[in-house]
This record gives sequence, structure tokens and C-alpha cells, in this order.
Amino acid sequence: MDPLRHVKPAVRGIAAYTLALREAPVKINQNENPWDLEDTVKRRVLEAALGRPWSRYPDFDPKELLVALARFSGWREDGVLAGNGSNELIEALLLVTVGAGTRVVIPAPTFTLYALMTTILGGEPVRVPLRPASADPAAGLVYDVDAISAARRDSGASVTIVCSPNNPTGNSLSLAAIERLCDESDALVVVDEAYHEFSGETAVPLLARHPNLVVLRTFSKAMALAGLRVGYLLASPELVREINKARLPYNLNFFSQAAAIAALEEKEALEASVARLVRERERVLAALGSMPGVRAWPSRANFFVLETLEGADPKAVFASMLRRGVLVRDVTSYPMLGRCLRVSVGREEENDAFLHALGTALGEAGVAASAGRA
Amino acid sequence: MDPLRHVKPAVRGIAAYTLALREAPVKINQNENPWDLEDTVKRRVLEAALGRPWSRYPDFDPKELLVALARFSGWREDGVLAGNGSNELIEALLLVTVGAGTRVVIPAPTFTLYALMTTILGGEPVRVPLRPASADPAAGLVYDVDAISAARRDSGASVTIVCSPNNPTGNSLSLAAIERLCDESDALVVVDEAYHEFSGETAVPLLARHPNLVVLRTFSKAMALAGLRVGYLLASPELVREINKARLPYNLNFFSQAAAIAALEEKEALEASVARLVRERERVLAALGSMPGVRAWPSRANFFVLETLEGADPKAVFASMLRRGVLVRDVTSYPMLGRCLRVSVGREEENDAFLHALGTALGEAGVAASAGRA
Repeated sequence: MDPLRHVKPAVRGIAAYTLALREAPVKINQNENPWDLEDTVKRRVLEAALGRPWSRYPDFDPKELLVALARFSGWREDGVLAGNGSNELIEALLLVTVGAGTRVVIPAPTFTLYALMTTILGGEPVRVPLRPASADPAAGLVYDVDAISAARRDSGASVTIVCSPNNPTGNSLSLAAIERLCDESDALVVVDEAYHEFSGETAVPLLARHPNLVVLRTFSKAMALAGLRVGYLLASPELVREINKARLPYNLNFFSQAAAIAALEEKEALEASVARLVRERERVLAALGSMPGVRAWPSRANFFVLETLEGADPKAVFASMLRRGVLVRDVTSYPMLGRCLRVSVGREEENDAFLHALGTALGEAGVAASAGRA
Repeated sequence: MDPLRHVKPAVRGIAAYTLALREAPVKINQNENPWDLEDTVKRRVLEAALGRPWSRYPDFDPKELLVALARFSGWREDGVLAGNGSNELIEALLLVTVGAGTRVVIPAPTFTLYALMTTILGGEPVRVPLRPASADPAAGLVYDVDAISAARRDSGASVTIVCSPNNPTGNSLSLAAIERLCDESDALVVVDEAYHEFSGETAVPLLARHPNLVVLRTFSKAMALAGLRVGYLLASPELVREINKARLPYNLNFFSQAAAIAALEEKEALEASVARLVRERERVLAALGSMPGVRAWPSRANFFVLETLEGADPKAVFASMLRRGVLVRDVTSYPMLGRCLRVSVGREEENDAFLHALGTALGEAGVAASAGRA
């Protein structure tokens, strides 16, 4: 009796995506928006929830939300799908395209879910390493567009997934590069724009010309609704119809739908919080520029890579900051990031606390402690 | 340029699961609980939601809910998974077990999602028709356990999925039959207990002895939370660890988690509404027993099959009732149910409205109208 032999070997061979549960006063480890929705907005959503029977299914298609998303994104309504986080839409997209042996081009390092889901589906991730941005190691890593292009052609990939700006490296793919990939073949090009608000760039204007382009968006970052799990997908109506076949019925509960609609109406608050985060990002990066023992990479997102130099062990720095109440993300297990932590940009006082904790941690490690305070 | 050629042929070949959006004063088409949670319970959940930042992710594992589910179901906590509706857990289970050519035994007719998801994953549904319960056609259809057993053996199936009580036929699989299937081989036996509260039977006590058994449950029916999408899966910890690899991170939003925990605390209200629905089911079935032109099948669930006899076209009866504000489910496209509608049991006055509308519809169809009013 061995029921586990009916689990696919590809699944047996992988580790589950996981994140150790840690609490800390300064939580800058999940790229969340540190400013919550206004209480008045929340109360509006809660009141509507009280007037609605919870025992009744949500609409089969979340029509009102789809209309709002189409208006917000500037793309046609029949080209929009909403999901339980963009994760669910990545899954649906891969479900309809990936079977045994299907190649999926995925840069490395990037968000781990793309390769995990491809592997579970029996597909083969074709990993394309990022390359140094320049001879200056402080310039970080960027996409190698020529290598991505060659990998797609050589492997006969059906799908290419690019996160832009990229999690966790913060670099982005130019619109010209996206368009080049879309033009090269009819294979699908998926651009995960989870962090696009912080870069000010989007591939949405390319959708009309490129029926092989798919854009993913989320409410979990700038939109400040990580707790309610809402994402959306933009593509040609033809492609959306096929991806929709793998979307689970009633996938989006009524409460998350209502909260997403309310969040879309708060465009000014959204823009203000994005501008404030971008200002903070640049302030923190400038402060780190003069701190010995570390390198902070440039970023187009609401987080950045912090590379610890000789003498400062990244895991020791992580642990030391956590003891001081500052929780960042340990990304040392990612390819090419063996000496790196990922730091989300928080509120002003949180960023100050981070800079202070980092200075102290580096001091403990014997790196010019006095220079550690920005 | 044909991006659709990168969509798998199996997906191109299927139609999406869909349900036409229809509104009606008496909505007995989705097997929902017609009684909502108490306002006091809802307000408790809403207040907690106001005090929680919406911008922060839910816990990676919904620990508090898992503990509550373990206590509620009487199964070990490390053998529980929670999902965005049981649909998501069916999907996760099939993701880790089904690849190209994997056989999945699925009775017919049943809930359509099992075969849809199997097909999308490249697997092959092995359909096993239900058989007449007896020589009396009013006794409805039941599972053919010998045929299910033979189909598993002959096809070398990795998974067998049985909905018990079955949607849409209302029959259930005995614990002895479930145990027989579990004993025959180590292939997985999945029992979808979406409607178990209305039958009073559950396979949970078999879990300890059968590591190849998986039980699925939902909050969308008796638990009165269809609008918030919560389901759970019970199995051996070893199997749960593997299925968990295909569960999306943060799949359950904080609000649905809180609502599910609150619903679990309302055990008395749940039991009262289940008893009331079962009484209503038997009252309506008895009334239909004396109505010419139709046959109502016995049911262990909160719905039943209504078969229209010669002279009464099921689609005409459906449309006529809808014109009178009574919305049931047209299941004429299901195998073996070409003359059938599915009717959910509602509140007392809704069931009366249904009986009245049906009598009128049959009268229009020329079937002894005067007998139509129960």
C-alpha cells in the first residue's frame, strides 16, 4: 500500500513554496504597501458586505469588477480575467499551455512560482540567467534579452514569462524588448507587472498589436490589498477565452471583489502612496550608497537587493536585524544571489529603523561600524 | 501569427464550465443554504476585518482555521488543507497526480469539474455510468460499485473521484463501498462530501485506516458561505504534504478565513438549518409523489432530480417556472438526465412557490393541471 506512488515524480522531487512565519515590528519582507486603505473606504466595503447574503455564490463572472478593471487599465473588457491573486491566473495560463515536455523560458533569478507550476505540470523550465548591468557591480543584474530570445528559439518554447520589474532584482524589461520578443514568434510572452506602478511603465499599450502578449497585474502590492487576494490578466479576447477554461468557477469571493472595486476608485490615494514609496526608495538607496560593507542595487520596484560584501555574512546580517525588530527577506538561496537580502521599502520611520539596524548589524560583523548610520 | 496554437489541443476541444446568469425571486438552482449566517455573527467578522490591515498578506498557512477544521471534522491537523472553495483543492489534488494519459475514474453523471480538470491536465476520464436503483424508475440512479471497481482495475486508474451524496442525482456511496474501493488497491479514492451534512454520513472515520482516501468538504452548501469560497481537504499527512505543493501561496484571503472560523462556531444553527432542510426535502418529495407528469428521485442531499414524463418537455417546464419567478437548474445536457431538472430545497415558502409554479407549468403542458397543486 503506497498511495504516494500515484503522485507524479516531478512533484515528489520538488520542495513546496514556503515562507517561515516571522513577526517583527518592522515588516519589510513581502513587498506590501505599508499604507493601508483609508478606514472610510473599508467601512464602505464592510457595509455592503453586511447587506449581502453570504450564503449565496458570487457572480459566475465578476462583471462589475471586470468593467472597472477594463476602465482602469485601458484595455478591452473581453480581454480581462480576474483571479484569486495573480498566482491563480499564472496557474490558469500554464494549465492551458503546459503539458509533458512543454518548454517555458523563465529568467533566473525571478519569482519562484513560474518554474514550480511549470514543473508540476510536466513542463520544462528553460532558465536564462540575468547578466551584470555593467562593469560596476553596484549596478546589479539585468535581463539578457539576446539570451532570452535565443533560448526561446532554441528550445521551441511555447511560453516565456518575464517579471517586470523583476522580483527580487528590481530591474525591468524595456517596452522595446517586450515588443521584440512578441514579434519574433507567435509563442506567448507573459509580462508579470506585479510592481509596474513603481516603475511607471506598462506593456498594456502593446496588447492591441500583439495577440501573443499576456500582462499580469496584482492588487497585493501598490493597490494595498494583499490580504484579500485579487489579481488580473490582460490579453487578446481569443486567448482569454482559452485561459478562462482553466479558471475555477466562482474563483473570486464577493468581499474581495467589492474591496477591489473600492480600491480602484481610490486612484489619487494610490498615486500618492506610490510617489511616496518611490521617493523613499531613492532616499534609502542614496543612504546605502555611502555605507561600507554593502551594495544596494538600483530598483524600479518597491524593494531592492542588498548585497553584503566580504566580511559581512548575509544570514548573520539578516538575523541581527531581525533581533532588532526589522524583518527583511533572505534570498541567499536564489541563483546568483548568494550574498543578498531583499528589502521592501516601508514607511519613512520603518526605513530609518532598517538603516539603523543594518548599521548596527554591520558593526557587529566588524564592518566600519561608525559609518553604518546613514 | 497564431498564438492559440500554443494552447493544448485538449483545452481547445472543451467548452468552459459556465452558468447563465439569471435572477429570480425564488433561486433554487445552486444548492445554496437559503438561510444566511446571523447578523451578529457577520458583524463579529466585519469588526475583526476593520482592525486588520488589508494591505498585509494573510498567513502562509491559515493556522487558526486549520486547527478549527481539525477539531470540527475530527481529523488530525496535519492532515487538513484549506482552499479557495473545494474546487481549488480538487485542482491541487489533480495537479499532483494527473499528467499525460493518467486515468481518472469518474462516475457519470456527476459534478462536471472533475472531468474538465482531468482533461485540461492531459489525463483521461474513465466514465462509469450510474445504474437504476431498482425496477421502479422513480427510485432514480445509484452508483454501480462493481462497475467502478472494474473500471479502476481495468484502466489502471491513479485516482477515483466519487461525489457522495452525488450532484446532481442525490444518491450516496455507502461507507462499506468506499472502504471496499480503498482496500482494492493503493490508487487514490476521493470522496467529495460537499453535501454530507444532509445525508448524516461521512467517510472521515475511514481516514485513519486508509492512507489512499481523500475527503473533500465545502463551506458553500450547509455551512452557508458560498459567497466567500472556502473548502477543505482531509487525508493522510503524507498525501497532504504532496498536494500542498500545488496549493498556491496565500490562497485563502483573511476575510474568508475569519468567516469560516466564525461559521464553525455556529454548530447549533448549522444543525438546525440542516434538520429544517431535510424536513423540507421530504415534504416536497412527498408532495411531488402525487403529482402527475413528473417523477422526483429520492435524495440524501439538499436538492433532488425532477424527471418530467412524456408530454412535459423539461426545458419548457424550466422556462415556464422561470417566468413565474422560480429558477431551478436545467441538467438536460448531463448524461442520462435528458428529461431532468435539478431542484434545490429552499425555505418553506420557496418550496411552496416551486410546487405551485411546477403545477402551473405542467398544466400549460397539458398534464392534468388540477392535480398540480400539492
